[in-house]
Amino acid sequence: MNQRSFGESPVVIIEEGSVGLVETKYFTFAYPPDLFQMENGLTLGPITVAYETYGRLSESADNVILVEHALTASAHAAGKHAPEDKVPGWWDVMIGPGKAFDTEKYFVVCSNILGSCYGTTGPSSINLATGRPYGLDFPLITIRDMVSVQKALIDSLGVKRIKAVAGGSMGGMQAMEWALSYPGIVDSVVLVASGAVSNPQSIAIHKVGIRAIMDDPDWNSGDYYGGNPPAKGLAIARMIGHITYLSHNWLWEKFGRNHPDPVSMKLRLDSNFDIEDYLEYQGASFVKRFDANSYIYIMRAIDIYDAAEGYGSLAESFMRMRCRKALVASFTSDWLFPTYQSHEIVDALHENNIECHYREIDSPYGHDSFLLEYMILTESIKGFLSSF
Amino acid sequence: MNQRSFGESPVVIIEEGSVGLVETKYFTFAYPPDLFQMENGLTLGPITVAYETYGRLSESADNVILVEHALTASAHAAGKHAPEDKVPGWWDVMIGPGKAFDTEKYFVVCSNILGSCYGTTGPSSINLATGRPYGLDFPLITIRDMVSVQKALIDSLGVKRIKAVAGGSMGGMQAMEWALSYPGIVDSVVLVASGAVSNPQSIAIHKVGIRAIMDDPDWNSGDYYGGNPPAKGLAIARMIGHITYLSHNWLWEKFGRNHPDPVSMKLRLDSNFDIEDYLEYQGASFVKRFDANSYIYIMRAIDIYDAAEGYGSLAESFMRMRCRKALVASFTSDWLFPTYQSHEIVDALHENNIECHYREIDSPYGHDSFLLEYMILTESIKGFLSSF
Repeated sequence: MNQRSFGESPVVIIEEGSVGLVETKYFTFAYPPDLFQMENGLTLGPITVAYETYGRLSESADNVILVEHALTASAHAAGKHAPEDKVPGWWDVMIGPGKAFDTEKYFVVCSNILGSCYGTTGPSSINLATGRPYGLDFPLITIRDMVSVQKALIDSLGVKRIKAVAGGSMGGMQAMEWALSYPGIVDSVVLVASGAVSNPQSIAIHKVGIRAIMDDPDWNSGDYYGGNPPAKGLAIARMIGHITYLSHNWLWEKFGRNHPDPVSMKLRLDSNFDIEDYLEYQGASFVKRFDANSYIYIMRAIDIYDAAEGYGSLAESFMRMRCRKALVASFTSDWLFPTYQSHEIVDALHENNIECHYREIDSPYGHDSFLLEYMILTESIKGFLSSF
Repeated sequence: MNQRSFGESPVVIIEEGSVGLVETKYFTFAYPPDLFQMENGLTLGPITVAYETYGRLSESADNVILVEHALTASAHAAGKHAPEDKVPGWWDVMIGPGKAFDTEKYFVVCSNILGSCYGTTGPSSINLATGRPYGLDFPLITIRDMVSVQKALIDSLGVKRIKAVAGGSMGGMQAMEWALSYPGIVDSVVLVASGAVSNPQSIAIHKVGIRAIMDDPDWNSGDYYGGNPPAKGLAIARMIGHITYLSHNWLWEKFGRNHPDPVSMKLRLDSNFDIEDYLEYQGASFVKRFDANSYIYIMRAIDIYDAAEGYGSLAESFMRMRCRKALVASFTSDWLFPTYQSHEIVDALHENNIECHYREIDSPYGHDSFLLEYMILTESIKGFLSSF
């Protein structure tokens, strides 16, 4: 195991069981006038979806696993795009021959979410009506919209049933919403480090990030394409995010109060603790790879998600589900989606007599555990998927 | 009890037992060439200290209690400056006739810390060498520097012994440093919601705030006096701070996912949850009252504080202490200075056979508990102070 400890999102690299070289494909739908209907009543189109598939679709088209990504990942969940790539897809450790999502058995599909900037239509895409990037003319998106777009994609692939929809963090919200919006075709869900809502602390933290981006003069009301992006504001937003991905104790373990030059610490404002260098690095590397408007839109989609919306309770909302099974996993040190949020999901599943396997994993890594605790997740998911 | 729930820092208001009308006084020392020696080896002067006193100094000058303020408070700890003031000093609920710090018995002194902007010399003060505000020419300050400045103040007041040095949050760090730097005159310390160091998560959170201020174009490398202050960056820094002052559960209790207009939430980026309005309000009100450079310097002083610095352990460092007693209090829901940080202090006190009363208070309010849980603190402090 080789964890990129100073990288962006943590990607665990293991050599065995790779899906090998893969490529991102594109599907475009909702051409005018048959535009995509969004949850807020607005319309959008055409919409392009970037996606990757691993393994083969069975003849009965029933061996499908949808993998849902979190805030800033992409369709590139496994394998490499070129032999010289240093880092594989973001959940490579879980997807491949013999792995948790075994590509010798399953046809795994991962698509970039609506609103992102990795090939799927989002605020940085060209608005056909103006010939320029949407910017803030892009309509607000919801988790349900992300899922609806994925439904159009899998319809185009001839998929009839989904054995499991799996995701961590916001990916778990999408998986849950899949089972709620399209109950007839989802056999199971795998919800890792997730929640049925965004808690107020998470909304508050997103708020600060959104405000930092919008207050960057380069943001220019979202109309910065072709000019300088709001790099400073976006870096700040990402730095805050990274604090929430790591647990309090893990920060002690990983960085402590280490400082390369304790003397200068009392003399110069720019003399950084290691944790500060880490955050600076995270901020600086993020702005090279992600669009600020996409970040705002996706954070907002997380904020406003509420799986119980329109129902008296989460349990009542879950009455729509037709899953045969669910696997829920949470991590003791996760303070972005604390374990109580998984307990709420488990309780609502139980109230609806949906067979639910729950695993509360004692892990020091905080929210990032969903990317790092791959061995215990592999064990849980393998057993779960082979049980039906 | 009337808590200003939408105010800046929480100030509990009770009518009985007020010290009445008070005024801020000023003491100036360290005139050239006898400048103040800072911990980092640099010098500074002249230094003015804003302070208030409540009660009367006894003839033997031995009934003194020093009250130490936290990040953004002032010397105005109790009473009102004018009858029409809506809000009294920041710890009015604790200081007055019959209160925890009983002004019928004790002579209570509170001074604005070095580096602040409420009358004590700080980055916004005029640098005599240039005739202009110091800005970043102000030397970096430490908790020890703050305490050393206070020592000069109490010397000028004729104080010989201090019955107790008391403070919450960074105020607790100052109280601890008092007992370490001037062991001969400090009889006891009262350390509330504090720590012997700033933990890495706290450093990380400060980092984001500092970065937000410095990235505001109006900051202008700290040279903004006479122009526009970096209001946007400072507001962001304060918003982050407020998230850390409230507990996760208290955010649910106080704001939940309440939103004044759930329909617009899916249509407009500027449609705020209540928690967002709260943070916006906190940010906007803070920039009217506080200097951005002071905020940076004080956050930095907190970051670099380590009561064990230069010693093998906290217990070894505490061997310097000559306190007769200590009272330590922490709050279960405080995640800025979690209770384990108070446990470390208690352990080090015990190892040095200093009589230590520890109270872990079950409170939902997070770090702000040190300002809000006045009844239980009053009970503890009254008993403590009357025991010797």
